Amino acid sequence: MKEVFVDGVGMTKFGKFPNKTLVDLMAEAASLAIKDSNSQDVQAIFIGAQNPEEFTGEANIAAALADKLELTGIPASRIETASSSGASVIEAAFYAVASGRFERVLVVAGEKMTHLPTPKVTKILAEVIESYERNSGASMVALAAMVTQAYAHYAKLSHRKLEQVLCKIAVKNHKNGAKNPYAQFQKEIDDDTYFNSRIISYPLRLFDCAPITDGAAALVLTSHRTDVKISGMGHGTDTIAVRHRVHLHHFNAARIAAREAYKMANRSPSEIQFAEIHDAFTCFEIIGAEDLGLLDEGKGWRAVEKGYTEIDGKIPINPSGGLKARGHPVGASGLAQAVEIVWQMREKVAKERQIKRNDIAVLHSIGGMSNNNVVIIFEKPGTPHSTGFCFEREIVDAKKHKKDPIRVGREGILDAYTILTVVPEGFPSPLVLGLVSVPSGHRILARAVNPVTFRVGERVFLSKEEDTFYFMKASAMEKALFSLKKALRKVKLSMRWKLR
Amino acid sequence: MKEVFVDGVGMTKFGKFPNKTLVDLMAEAASLAIKDSNSQDVQAIFIGAQNPEEFTGEANIAAALADKLELTGIPASRIETASSSGASVIEAAFYAVASGRFERVLVVAGEKMTHLPTPKVTKILAEVIESYERNSGASMVALAAMVTQAYAHYAKLSHRKLEQVLCKIAVKNHKNGAKNPYAQFQKEIDDDTYFNSRIISYPLRLFDCAPITDGAAALVLTSHRTDVKISGMGHGTDTIAVRHRVHLHHFNAARIAAREAYKMANRSPSEIQFAEIHDAFTCFEIIGAEDLGLLDEGKGWRAVEKGYTEIDGKIPINPSGGLKARGHPVGASGLAQAVEIVWQMREKVAKERQIKRNDIAVLHSIGGMSNNNVVIIFEKPGTPHSTGFCFEREIVDAKKHKKDPIRVGREGILDAYTILTVVPEGFPSPLVLGLVSVPSGHRILARAVNPVTFRVGERVFLSKEEDTFYFMKASAMEKALFSLKKALRKVKLSMRWKLR
Repeated sequence: MKEVFVDGVGMTKFGKFPNKTLVDLMAEAASLAIKDSNSQDVQAIFIGAQNPEEFTGEANIAAALADKLELTGIPASRIETASSSGASVIEAAFYAVASGRFERVLVVAGEKMTHLPTPKVTKILAEVIESYERNSGASMVALAAMVTQAYAHYAKLSHRKLEQVLCKIAVKNHKNGAKNPYAQFQKEIDDDTYFNSRIISYPLRLFDCAPITDGAAALVLTSHRTDVKISGMGHGTDTIAVRHRVHLHHFNAARIAAREAYKMANRSPSEIQFAEIHDAFTCFEIIGAEDLGLLDEGKGWRAVEKGYTEIDGKIPINPSGGLKARGHPVGASGLAQAVEIVWQMREKVAKERQIKRNDIAVLHSIGGMSNNNVVIIFEKPGTPHSTGFCFEREIVDAKKHKKDPIRVGREGILDAYTILTVVPEGFPSPLVLGLVSVPSGHRILARAVNPVTFRVGERVFLSKEEDTFYFMKASAMEKALFSLKKALRKVKLSMRWKLR
Repeated sequence: MKEVFVDGVGMTKFGKFPNKTLVDLMAEAASLAIKDSNSQDVQAIFIGAQNPEEFTGEANIAAALADKLELTGIPASRIETASSSGASVIEAAFYAVASGRFERVLVVAGEKMTHLPTPKVTKILAEVIESYERNSGASMVALAAMVTQAYAHYAKLSHRKLEQVLCKIAVKNHKNGAKNPYAQFQKEIDDDTYFNSRIISYPLRLFDCAPITDGAAALVLTSHRTDVKISGMGHGTDTIAVRHRVHLHHFNAARIAAREAYKMANRSPSEIQFAEIHDAFTCFEIIGAEDLGLLDEGKGWRAVEKGYTEIDGKIPINPSGGLKARGHPVGASGLAQAVEIVWQMREKVAKERQIKRNDIAVLHSIGGMSNNNVVIIFEKPGTPHSTGFCFEREIVDAKKHKKDPIRVGREGILDAYTILTVVPEGFPSPLVLGLVSVPSGHRILARAVNPVTFRVGERVFLSKEEDTFYFMKASAMEKALFSLKKALRKVKLSMRWKLR
């Protein structure tokens, strides 16, 4: 393979831009990246976007952008891997340059979302969720909330401690965002702001979730040597359904991607000096850092507590403000992470948020509910190798995933649950969803009979009506009440039937 | 670059499959391609699809397919270039293998469309059209109809002759489709069937248009030598708006793609023995063959008349039945063309439609209204080179395209027009659209004042109301009538205003 380097980079400010189209934003970022390059010549265009068709009503954006940039003639392709599209587009372009076919290609990613009402955006985003889980009322934040709970259980974090840690991440990323003129939110928040924000899907609050954003980012990749090299490229997938995974508290797809990236770069996590991690939800920042091997497994939260992930910490994470504060135009985020890494390495643009040790960095991007993840390693050419390849995280064999059971017994163990207050259309609020392990070794997604709080790891009773599983407290009283309700419903139904 | 070969290939039957999901269809094709391969091992998945989100309501299909195939873990990316997605996905996978990163990758493309009502499908497909043209009422078939007219004018074909040629293409492709058990339409049609089919957008009839189809195709690319090599890869873009092109009667994007493909393969058009060409509309088969240099410019229709493009002709085109008869699941068609080429070269599957000379073939795929095209050359390794690279078609410098004029004079020349009988929602039927060249050298899309027939090349009068241009016969009477109507409308409006 030919070596691949980053030439110019550029991005639009992230935020709300009602008067600009997606192609306008992409063209703006692209022009900045080309202007920032050693040569204005590019031989192909690679575009990343999650869902321009439904967000903007416009398709065929690869050709549209080539036209807008007056680069009509050269190849233009779009790459899509849900929310990691901004990183996987770098991957596709990387191979095109590494093959020797092109010497210089333009890579652009963008999304335009803020012009739509939030429920519509949420609905479009939810299309990446496996259909049974989506039809059961699970939104992205609901699934993230359950992953967060599973992580807390694994790491033995009390609810109070979990909240403090998540708050710390949100506060840190807003602090970094305040130093980033390209960020959607350029103001710091304090603990009160975090704790006063409403619960969206317990235990996640509004300030645990990345916002809805417009924006685009771009870079030029080249086979000619520059001051930043892409040394490692990894990409991994996982089951589309969250319930089909062996572990809920980490992301197998990220670990596979990380292993491949470290292997190609002949590096180990200990050599990484800073990271841009996909914090679509605060807890994903810790899980991501653990998956990448940057923080100890189940103990990443301690590093957060101690401030190790701050700009001046041992291993700075998301100096840009992350998805939380820079904003999250879904298909653009991965590429915006790359732009931040390059800016940090060049020590010109980052200014107030400049990281001192900036020779090797890692980019971590999550696609969908973490089933299409990309990890990319950037380094300054010539940075010495202190370890060689080494990566010690457990990676589960995909074949071990159990799909849906034919029969489910009468009880199970609650692996995680969430109380949604913001529910998809057609569902009652609050809606309590749980992931329950059953004795056969399968895991099911179920709905709580009553909107009460549970304890992760507790035994629950199960029931099924039509296609929906229900779970309830494993107490005789609850069970009796549920049976009674069920019986009453049947009586009502049969009466209605007779009345016809 | 490493050499890239095709290992196994496979496809589903094309047609209507109400009980299968898009991922089901893709998985079926993928499994066939893997089974057909020398090794069952693949290291990455590349997926092509135009718009699964809007056609099926499901996103994140790359991860979903990996999961369905129990290949979870390995990278999975989707590539999209509108209707050439099935070919551009081969391109992206080609570079990944050519770079040396992967030895063996799975390439799959599919689309599922038939479960939606036709107007809905047409609306989704129209999203690839430039917004001004779309908002003026131009559908894909309307633009294709105008291109067809421009071709006929350039080739000096009378309307009667044009109809006969188009009929001949439809009949030929149905004849080939009748020999293809994977085709959506496996029956021959005669001239009467063609001429009795209704006009959709003058001069195009129903039998000039590829159908709405479900289906998927797949192949495995490898760096290990097999009996079929991909020797040439080209990809070109053009303006998103049809009116911004220098020429209407050929496709610049196809010519650029062809030039790049021939150059990489070090071949000339004269060495090509058969072709799969993107006949989404019958006339595109001739234009495509001319753009590829297979038939003489402006004279391709003669080759059709003489039967040169039949299976046993000098240069067989679309032995599969083409998009017309095999069917056109938009994102899958490019890959289905590749499968047909490989089957022809292997002389096992094609049977009744087997082409005798099958050492070198070309694939031609159109994205959008021909602004994102891909050309790929396949050959049996070791096929001698008789000419070396040579390609003599005019290719227009994209910078020469004129964008929209600020002012338009009172008259222009009608370059092409169409009478839509099937119109987009909100437009009167029939709707007459025309592409009119104005003295400043620009071309505008205009609507005819009256639904009458015109002559391509005739002088027309122009008028503008709000954002819409109108054209009319360049006669004093027409103009007077139009002015009168306009005046009456103004009077009405002002009266309505006063009454309020």
